[in-house]
Amino acid sequence: MVDIATRVWNHKWKIDPIVRSMIDTDFYKLLMCQSVFRNKPDTQVTFSLINRSRHVPLAKLIDEGELREQLDHIRSLSLRRGESTWMRGNTFYGKRQMFTPEFMDWFEALRLPAYHLERREDQYELTFEGSWPEVMLWEIPALAVLMELRGRAVLNEMGRFELQVLYARAMTKLWEKIERLKGHDGLRVADFGTRRRHSFLWQDWCVQAMGEGLGAQFAGTSNCLIAKNRDLEAIGTNAHELPMVYSALAQTDEALAQAPYDVLSDWHDEHDGNLRIILPDTYGTEGFLERAPDWLAGWTGIRIDSGDPAAGAEVAIKWWQARGEDPREKLVIFSDGLDADKIVELHQQFASRVKVSFGWGTMLTNDFKGLTEDDRLAPFSLVCKAVSANGRPTVKLSDNPNKAMGPASEIERYKRVFGVGEQERMEVVV
Amino acid sequence: MVDIATRVWNHKWKIDPIVRSMIDTDFYKLLMCQSVFRNKPDTQVTFSLINRSRHVPLAKLIDEGELREQLDHIRSLSLRRGESTWMRGNTFYGKRQMFTPEFMDWFEALRLPAYHLERREDQYELTFEGSWPEVMLWEIPALAVLMELRGRAVLNEMGRFELQVLYARAMTKLWEKIERLKGHDGLRVADFGTRRRHSFLWQDWCVQAMGEGLGAQFAGTSNCLIAKNRDLEAIGTNAHELPMVYSALAQTDEALAQAPYDVLSDWHDEHDGNLRIILPDTYGTEGFLERAPDWLAGWTGIRIDSGDPAAGAEVAIKWWQARGEDPREKLVIFSDGLDADKIVELHQQFASRVKVSFGWGTMLTNDFKGLTEDDRLAPFSLVCKAVSANGRPTVKLSDNPNKAMGPASEIERYKRVFGVGEQERMEVVV
Repeated sequence: MVDIATRVWNHKWKIDPIVRSMIDTDFYKLLMCQSVFRNKPDTQVTFSLINRSRHVPLAKLIDEGELREQLDHIRSLSLRRGESTWMRGNTFYGKRQMFTPEFMDWFEALRLPAYHLERREDQYELTFEGSWPEVMLWEIPALAVLMELRGRAVLNEMGRFELQVLYARAMTKLWEKIERLKGHDGLRVADFGTRRRHSFLWQDWCVQAMGEGLGAQFAGTSNCLIAKNRDLEAIGTNAHELPMVYSALAQTDEALAQAPYDVLSDWHDEHDGNLRIILPDTYGTEGFLERAPDWLAGWTGIRIDSGDPAAGAEVAIKWWQARGEDPREKLVIFSDGLDADKIVELHQQFASRVKVSFGWGTMLTNDFKGLTEDDRLAPFSLVCKAVSANGRPTVKLSDNPNKAMGPASEIERYKRVFGVGEQERMEVVV
Repeated sequence: MVDIATRVWNHKWKIDPIVRSMIDTDFYKLLMCQSVFRNKPDTQVTFSLINRSRHVPLAKLIDEGELREQLDHIRSLSLRRGESTWMRGNTFYGKRQMFTPEFMDWFEALRLPAYHLERREDQYELTFEGSWPEVMLWEIPALAVLMELRGRAVLNEMGRFELQVLYARAMTKLWEKIERLKGHDGLRVADFGTRRRHSFLWQDWCVQAMGEGLGAQFAGTSNCLIAKNRDLEAIGTNAHELPMVYSALAQTDEALAQAPYDVLSDWHDEHDGNLRIILPDTYGTEGFLERAPDWLAGWTGIRIDSGDPAAGAEVAIKWWQARGEDPREKLVIFSDGLDADKIVELHQQFASRVKVSFGWGTMLTNDFKGLTEDDRLAPFSLVCKAVSANGRPTVKLSDNPNKAMGPASEIERYKRVFGVGEQERMEVVV
């Protein structure tokens, strides 16, 4: 086992690049990438870094040269032979050949496209422009690089034993959470923490700790490299970028209203079973479900990623009931702002009424809150989003106005088209 | 840096003997050994293991074969060249050639004598008989072996991440203590924790953590191997075994009353400065100081190793004042049952009145209290004492009747000879 503290101390990371593989990314990115590669390969998309935590002055904390070094390193990566073998030969969600030979040939040849980096006062402007299936693969590594460089800036000032004790405290903290999750009948959790992880080595430790501590309660990890290295299930389905880009491409209000369903229609053609998970909140969950075609009610589950999670689950249950489905046969995946207590609470609340699963992110792989002076290692809210497609801005509303993004006039239009009224504002921590 | 948890997990210690060197022992043992080698080389002494914590069934927890293996390994050790060089060439307490060439020649040739091990119900009877300078060197390694084997029995049942978290918690706990000790002006602490350490690797970690965390406030370690490896001061002076054996050898009550002073008279001839530390409690501190010759008041300090430490310090201060000495020039060393809070409290209480120093033992190197279910790693009170000399039983009274040892009739005689009245009983935890 790697002694993380010592590795951090000895090398100051010179030999440890932050992102070390093309598959050091979330599984759903690869699934979506294949879908985009098939359905919208020529769409030109811009991804952009958005630091929702303005009080974290990234450009003051992170040296621009170091940032470029890490991003350049990512551009030097290509899929390794063993990684390709794993993607081609492994079973994902019970299915062989999840990735087509055409996609794999393309992916093997891929290098990530150029990035654009500029400092604007205390923040970085970091954007990625290009064809959708290429630029979309920047999101996760870009976030991981910024999160980890910000952490390294703090760690660099710490002594050898301070580091050991820092990691000791973080380990203890996670283990106590694992102990809280243990033994709840049927409670299953997956690691969704790649993008905002403290570091790769730390995520790898967290995943292993979950495996030993939770046994069969641990469902797997969204991180493909760790799933491959540790023989775990790779977990994930789809994300907001699909409806956001599809919607931006819509030429009329009618086409816009239809766009989110087009996404799932394409997905329906490609996937079945546990991969048929609806992410309904991009433009408001209630309206989305009300207007949804009946075939969507036949899907396996719903992922709740914004708003009050219990309220979201109630909406999902009511919708299934209204469509004549038995909620107990359905899967609700909670994936927003989770921590151990919340997971246990939601599990107790819903486990007898639906199948429940959890995608645990930031507070699994980056809970260094309260572990340093001034809390300079506390996780913060950084995202990297598709902001335009073929020159048209994207919009996200979600079930929490604090997570909304896009130009104000477009937000108003989307609210009108999708019939979104007043929404409850909820603080976005991570 | 060694990742202790992984080492524990990977090897189940087959490659890590518990005691790995002739100088993996307390510095004062070597000082006393030289004194005994010079003054009483032919005295036949028996050392015996005494488990004051009868509720810890050592023979149930520790496999006899494993115990023999570890003890046999110790008998196979001899002083290494680099160790001899260090003892011959290093400066101890500011003095070169602390160890004479005669002693070093003898020590280089030494192998530890045979041991006698027998199981008696749930405890082990472990004794060492032979010439005093040889058998006395068994005390520290024998205790370290039993403490660590008892720990291993518990650790063996733990998973890989459970172990990582166990050590993470122990590290966090110690670091918090170090932070509590930090910054108190003039507060100086030494490691006295070899005999009841959790393990060698753990003691080594604790010592390094003290060094980084406390800087100049960390005075050094009693462990010679660690002092040598880490370039630290080796700390220690003398112990109860000297007056206990000298007293057992006394043929009359008059000789008995004089014996503890004979010890210090021999010591006076050999050492000066900070090595002239009185350990006054073997047969009651008050009586010992009252009857002490005046030249003892000229010594540098007093070590308080039983009874209420603050009361002991007050007695010492009053004694110095009565003998016309300035207590502010004197050193009080606290070494009994210390933990961080107590150290800070005693420091605040006495730092302006005397020079204060601390020998921190078990709760520095073995505080695994509360870290496992049923607290099966909590330290316990194990000692290994000289029980007879030339066929006559030894006696220890100390300032706490719960620490007294020896045949009841002899205890009575000693109490009479040394004028010891009622004493306050204090719980002995470690």
